[in-house]
Amino acid sequence: MSFFQDMLTTIGDRGRALMERPSRWSSIPGRDADKPVTPSQIAGLCKALLSSRGEASGAALAKQVLDLYDRLSSAAKPEFFSLLATEFGHDQEALRRSWAAYESTPGIETLRSLIRISEPPRQELFRRLNMAPSGTSRLVEMRKDILQAMEAQRELVVLDDDLTHLFRSWFNRGFLVLRRITWSTPADVLERIIRYEAVHEINGWSDLQRRLAPPDRRCYAFFHPSLVDDPLIFVEVALMRDAPHSVGEILAEERAPLDAGEATTAVFYSISNCQDGLRGISFGNFLIKQVVEELSRDLPNLKNFVTLSPAPAFGRWLCQIAENPAAGSLGEAQAVAIAALNRIDWTGKPDDVAKAVATARPIMLGLAAEYYLKAKNSAGKPIDPVARFHLGNGARLDRLNWPSDTSPKGLKEGAGLMVNYLYDIRSIEANHEAFANSDTIAASPAVLRQHREFEATRKMEARNV
Amino acid sequence: MSFFQDMLTTIGDRGRALMERPSRWSSIPGRDADKPVTPSQIAGLCKALLSSRGEASGAALAKQVLDLYDRLSSAAKPEFFSLLATEFGHDQEALRRSWAAYESTPGIETLRSLIRISEPPRQELFRRLNMAPSGTSRLVEMRKDILQAMEAQRELVVLDDDLTHLFRSWFNRGFLVLRRITWSTPADVLERIIRYEAVHEINGWSDLQRRLAPPDRRCYAFFHPSLVDDPLIFVEVALMRDAPHSVGEILAEERAPLDAGEATTAVFYSISNCQDGLRGISFGNFLIKQVVEELSRDLPNLKNFVTLSPAPAFGRWLCQIAENPAAGSLGEAQAVAIAALNRIDWTGKPDDVAKAVATARPIMLGLAAEYYLKAKNSAGKPIDPVARFHLGNGARLDRLNWPSDTSPKGLKEGAGLMVNYLYDIRSIEANHEAFANSDTIAASPAVLRQHREFEATRKMEARNV
Amino acid sequence: MSFFQDMLTTIGDRGRALMERPSRWSSIPGRDADKPVTPSQIAGLCKALLSSRGEASGAALAKQVLDLYDRLSSAAKPEFFSLLATEFGHDQEALRRSWAAYESTPGIETLRSLIRISEPPRQELFRRLNMAPSGTSRLVEMRKDILQAMEAQRELVVLDDDLTHLFRSWFNRGFLVLRRITWSTPADVLERIIRYEAVHEINGWSDLQRRLAPPDRRCYAFFHPSLVDDPLIFVEVALMRDAPHSVGEILAEERAPLDAGEATTAVFYSISNCQDGLRGISFGNFLIKQVVEELSRDLPNLKNFVTLSPAPAFGRWLCQIAENPAAGSLGEAQAVAIAALNRIDWTGKPDDVAKAVATARPIMLGLAAEYYLKAKNSAGKPIDPVARFHLGNGARLDRLNWPSDTSPKGLKEGAGLMVNYLYDIRSIEANHEAFANSDTIAASPAVLRQHREFEATRKMEARNV
Amino acid sequence: MSFFQDMLTTIGDRGRALMERPSRWSSIPGRDADKPVTPSQIAGLCKALLSSRGEASGAALAKQVLDLYDRLSSAAKPEFFSLLATEFGHDQEALRRSWAAYESTPGIETLRSLIRISEPPRQELFRRLNMAPSGTSRLVEMRKDILQAMEAQRELVVLDDDLTHLFRSWFNRGFLVLRRITWSTPADVLERIIRYEAVHEINGWSDLQRRLAPPDRRCYAFFHPSLVDDPLIFVEVALMRDAPHSVGEILAEERAPLDAGEATTAVFYSISNCQDGLRGISFGNFLIKQVVEELSRDLPNLKNFVTLSPAPAFGRWLCQIAENPAAGSLGEAQAVAIAALNRIDWTGKPDDVAKAVATARPIMLGLAAEYYLKAKNSAGKPIDPVARFHLGNGARLDRLNWPSDTSPKGLKEGAGLMVNYLYDIRSIEANHEAFANSDTIAASPAVLRQHREFEATRKMEARNV
Repeated sequence: MSFFQDMLTTIGDRGRALMERPSRWSSIPGRDADKPVTPSQIAGLCKALLSSRGEASGAALAKQVLDLYDRLSSAAKPEFFSLLATEFGHDQEALRRSWAAYESTPGIETLRSLIRISEPPRQELFRRLNMAPSGTSRLVEMRKDILQAMEAQRELVVLDDDLTHLFRSWFNRGFLVLRRITWSTPADVLERIIRYEAVHEINGWSDLQRRLAPPDRRCYAFFHPSLVDDPLIFVEVALMRDAPHSVGEILAEERAPLDAGEATTAVFYSISNCQDGLRGISFGNFLIKQVVEELSRDLPNLKNFVTLSPAPAFGRWLCQIAENPAAGSLGEAQAVAIAALNRIDWTGKPDDVAKAVATARPIMLGLAAEYYLKAKNSAGKPIDPVARFHLGNGARLDRLNWPSDTSPKGLKEGAGLMVNYLYDIRSIEANHEAFANSDTIAASPAVLRQHREFEATRKMEARNV
Repeated sequence: MSFFQDMLTTIGDRGRALMERPSRWSSIPGRDADKPVTPSQIAGLCKALLSSRGEASGAALAKQVLDLYDRLSSAAKPEFFSLLATEFGHDQEALRRSWAAYESTPGIETLRSLIRISEPPRQELFRRLNMAPSGTSRLVEMRKDILQAMEAQRELVVLDDDLTHLFRSWFNRGFLVLRRITWSTPADVLERIIRYEAVHEINGWSDLQRRLAPPDRRCYAFFHPSLVDDPLIFVEVALMRDAPHSVGEILAEERAPLDAGEATTAVFYSISNCQDGLRGISFGNFLIKQVVEELSRDLPNLKNFVTLSPAPAFGRWLCQIAENPAAGSLGEAQAVAIAALNRIDWTGKPDDVAKAVATARPIMLGLAAEYYLKAKNSAGKPIDPVARFHLGNGARLDRLNWPSDTSPKGLKEGAGLMVNYLYDIRSIEANHEAFANSDTIAASPAVLRQHREFEATRKMEARNV
Repeated sequence: MSFFQDMLTTIGDRGRALMERPSRWSSIPGRDADKPVTPSQIAGLCKALLSSRGEASGAALAKQVLDLYDRLSSAAKPEFFSLLATEFGHDQEALRRSWAAYESTPGIETLRSLIRISEPPRQELFRRLNMAPSGTSRLVEMRKDILQAMEAQRELVVLDDDLTHLFRSWFNRGFLVLRRITWSTPADVLERIIRYEAVHEINGWSDLQRRLAPPDRRCYAFFHPSLVDDPLIFVEVALMRDAPHSVGEILAEERAPLDAGEATTAVFYSISNCQDGLRGISFGNFLIKQVVEELSRDLPNLKNFVTLSPAPAFGRWLCQIAENPAAGSLGEAQAVAIAALNRIDWTGKPDDVAKAVATARPIMLGLAAEYYLKAKNSAGKPIDPVARFHLGNGARLDRLNWPSDTSPKGLKEGAGLMVNYLYDIRSIEANHEAFANSDTIAASPAVLRQHREFEATRKMEARNV
Repeated sequence: MSFFQDMLTTIGDRGRALMERPSRWSSIPGRDADKPVTPSQIAGLCKALLSSRGEASGAALAKQVLDLYDRLSSAAKPEFFSLLATEFGHDQEALRRSWAAYESTPGIETLRSLIRISEPPRQELFRRLNMAPSGTSRLVEMRKDILQAMEAQRELVVLDDDLTHLFRSWFNRGFLVLRRITWSTPADVLERIIRYEAVHEINGWSDLQRRLAPPDRRCYAFFHPSLVDDPLIFVEVALMRDAPHSVGEILAEERAPLDAGEATTAVFYSISNCQDGLRGISFGNFLIKQVVEELSRDLPNLKNFVTLSPAPAFGRWLCQIAENPAAGSLGEAQAVAIAALNRIDWTGKPDDVAKAVATARPIMLGLAAEYYLKAKNSAGKPIDPVARFHLGNGARLDRLNWPSDTSPKGLKEGAGLMVNYLYDIRSIEANHEAFANSDTIAASPAVLRQHREFEATRKMEARNV
């Protein structure tokens, strides 16, 4: 193994040594750094890179293109992208000829020509740019810029198509490397973890240490050999005795850590994508499953693998049905509960809060069940994006927790609701297929019962009316 | 660096641990290993892998497919490939519809659809197969089988197209890792170097040690992160004071090694591709250039980078012109020289050999110059494949050595000729472009003079006739 | 290299895996952790460890001894040390017999016996304790406890002698490993750097990053293979264009970093010993010299290697001579300057400060020269401990900077003075020998001139009086 | 871990980079290499190294001393050693004074002085030599030379004492690193394994591969961080279903390897010390025990840990008792068996051999039992050195195999006998103590029974006479 390991260091060395890109710690910039660069200048170099000159001096030319691109102002980038979209796309005339040939003589060779011609030259351009030092990482950055520019210029979608196609190939699951992140991980990687955390903000190094160092905490990330030290996605895990009802149970500053061997439940409480430039290239599904495997092997006592997840569209959905009770989807008591909800002063006297909660809770759980099981988007999938992700992975909706997240954000987006999804290795495939093929939502008996009660109440009210 | 390095070990570990493939040291095979497997059975699993089931359990299914494939007999593989070619290709009806839509409403969206539909489902199948442990390596093996099967079944070329397209992307120069191979390299890697050497056979471990351990020897290889410990291509280098005229100067068993710091000339005397399954994915050009860079940095005294290369088609070409002297390309003395050549007894008395050589040498060098500068294939490039490679890389034909390789093989293929190509960093790009765009062959003044003399002689003879 | 590297990982793995010692992140302690432990119980186990049982089960017994020792209260430790001192010391009777034998028959064999018997059994005990997991690190901890206990019980010095003797052997320069500390170093190592810094406190992670990440900053540490991830000593270096007059030039939060290649001067501005248990085992001398070598190799532009060092006894010395001006060592103007010094309000109006400084400066520099060149301790060496260290290493006193450190601590200990010592590779050996053998203090011409002027002034004043 | 690992690489790098010592692959030697060196010249440098100059420039001086030592001829080395023995030994006068002071005023301080003075300056010299690059390895080499010189000059034993004392400290079990040796180990390490194997010669790389690559083979070695890539001791292990009767069962070229998980018995069939310069520093005991631990953890199915060991003094012992049957230790039938033994033609007809064996076997086994249980040296331990090693480690004599090794060497030294020792973790400590304290030999019931039968036979014969 060690040879391999040593061998791969080279990538890291090379990446670092050649990176030479401005960082906040870099010293005074080089001589040429102030000369203005124009989009067409770079496009000219791109042409050269695609020519026979590019074959001879690919890596050097690719570096030059990317260095100049880095010096392009934000304002000038869209213009460069337009050049890429128009001047490096298909030769539509050739495409037409190719199709004609295929139509007249269908066969392997005419089909092969057609397929060959249907790949735009841009793809080869991007493949050649990848030869530059840190090329992969810099193309990921470029796609981030393209995604932004696309908001104003829809036609740039063709660039996105090309990069997406390449990235699907380059960031294939088979090339990803799972690594545990610990308190012994290099500080520059940890600094990125702090920055990338998207669910429960990490407040500095002490907070990070609390999430990594105790024996009942785990963190795993996917890396790619060509993205030096830069994670693609990571998940934070708490090892516990029971699935938690709220994130406070996990992030409390003062708590006695559990011995890892005594934990029975692994809780995935935060999962963050790191690279904007890889948007749409999906890693989360693989990450969760591989972490489940790792943990199962290391800690045979672990029996349950659950998430603690937000319900980001529940608040909005509640407003909608509250505004439109006539649609019949809501009984009167239910409407009253929603209204009452808005009046709860969560920072008020504990007794008052407890009383209000006691009244609202059964109704809220019923509404939550309705939200997950019945509220669908136009594609017939749940309107909750987190639910689409986990159910799509084959997880089961396991428990509705209310009230759980009563932070301002939690109340606004999820009306205080958080849920646990269960990853049960034995039913993942079946759940996924049922969800994919027939929109079936896997839910625990408890959630199904809560929904039946909700329905019964509504019907009863309806009858009473 | 070390984090990265450690991180990447995982690939190696994973690869090894999960490989589980039969080797000559493996123990008694598992229970199911004897059950017969049918091509259609595997094709069925491939369908599942492409379905929503594949999304949920991709890695496991992919492993299953490749494990079963490994158990398929050589005789059954072509049948499996046929299924891949026919059942996982384009939906030609959809392609037709897509084209019609584009024709009627040309625009970004119809073009995007067309492009999307022009990628056969096989590509996605191969990408998913790559999720299996050691997937990349096993797909490379599969392409090797496909290339073999293609000899009988030309229509399998579509599979080759798909894999070539993927491999071009996966084995992009940006992902390759250059590593020096030394006597401290793990034995299993060295065992492969012995096996893969294709130019000057390595006769066991002592011979290998003589090529790696002395201070004036170097060996470099390209590796890919996903091909555990298995090189893609490697080059052997001798550090010398002058470009050698023959390989004997390099491989002599008894010789006083030179101190690396005193060498002025690096000689690339053997370059071998390792993976049959990567045929046509070109690495040699990049390898030589990166090794030139490495060596320049490490040993500033090095001034010249040359090869010692065979002339594999020179023998055949000589025969052809000898058979057809009337074509006027050959003067009488020249024809006589060729004829005399065949009568030299290279193992005979040194004096006799020396005398014969003295007579033949100037004529042979002239013929060699003619061969390299004038003998072209239908594409207008040299008929010598090694020349096409090095000149295509931007090297210059630097010196003709005759007699150089008087081994039976050397006499048969190259009529005893070997040549040095010179890689001069300052002229590589210009040479390459001139060669690519106008078929210009870069040659040293000496070679050009030898050719002028050859021409003059021939003309004179012609005049004399 | 990689095999070696991989091989050594084992130490780290083993260390970590077996450490099992309480940390602030550890979970609930094991069952036995509360049982009381007595010193004599541990001493009993130590006896067993030295017996033939110890030969069979050394590592396990050693672990047991050290685990129990960890559970001993601070109050009980001195009692355990007393047992070690009395029951594991020399057999004085045997020593006497051995001497008698040597006296009666001097010769190799009687001398060998005498030498053998003059090593107390404790040394073997400590060597066997080292077999426990993390044994070395735990013995270093134990010596720390012993040094503390020695303050009350002088007779424990024999334990210190034994451990010092062992540590001199184990921490031999030949076994130390120099490592650069960067922002890519694992967070747990960096956390220790923050904790161990003894000269210029590091205020959290951002401050640390400012000292490690910019291109003109370096940090190096010595490690020992058996002290997992725990540095022995480290030095912080600033790369500059000139030797700095004060630490503010180095630690300023807002500053434009210099490109490392443009620096001409490396400034060692902080050097900290990390392990109390290794007090008296000297590493600083070797560290500075090896870092000078490393930097010279990496950055050929570096010409000067200087320190920026405190003058920790200057303040006290000034008080002493001020109190006793009659001793004739001080002229009147000099006495006035010292007195004025105490009245400067360093936080006052810049103009006032500047005026006061202008007056005091020449006199202070003269006093400083006197302090370094003439103020000696009973051994004839400078009273300044930092001077003893650097001059003892062969450095030269290069420049006196006043006012430099006007922080409360800087004013109190050093009266605002800081100095630069110069490490000039060509004169280190000569300086060291002159200092060691004849107490000669190497000083720059400027310092010597300042001292001559000081002397002249004093004499003149003396004459005037 | 990775930081640590990376950190330690430095040792390796440093070692290799600075080694600069002649090897069979090294190039032409440097300019000075031919100048003659004299012992007294080196001794002079040693003096400097011990002086204050040595404090300033230790590493450089140490390197110089060792480089010159390397150039000393074999003939000149003893002279250098004599200088070390006489000029770097105790100041006997000071020793005497120190003793007198202690005698007149016994107390801690006088004792400390005495102890301090009883360490010869040579020890400090050796510690300083260790600062040179590869110092440790070169001192190990020097001890090898000293051991050789001691054969002629007994008085050099004091040098050996000093180095032994240091090496006991430096090669403490706590600093050793266990590493598995596999077919992926670097070739230069494997080359050493081939060279160092002392029990069953390894016939080239294919033989080595057969011992490392199959799934039922293991090899482990101890390394020291300062001896780059050079093992101290290694053991070869075969995983089997039963303890083997002869080494042929293990080393057969054609055999179906066992799956490691199905093995129940680990057989240590070869253990070799690698460094002559570490003679007398014992590692074997620790190695076997740690390998037992490793294997137990990795392969829970393993139940038995046995050796297959030679009986190197059995042949000689048989001759002795055969020559002196009158001593009564041998019955007549037994004497006849021994005599018959010498007449067996082991390469003869299988039937004849079988018949001879059938007759001799019970008697030979009885004699073997007598040899192991009763034949003692003057210290009361078994005369068999291998038995002393394994029984001293706490193993049990488990089975006598005859005929087992019928190679010429096996017949000559062990009369064809080989034995299995059993390492049973539960009884190791008790066995060791009984052996160490009361010379008790742990033997299996079978061996004890064979001995009882042998005794009975002899007594019966005696009675019959």
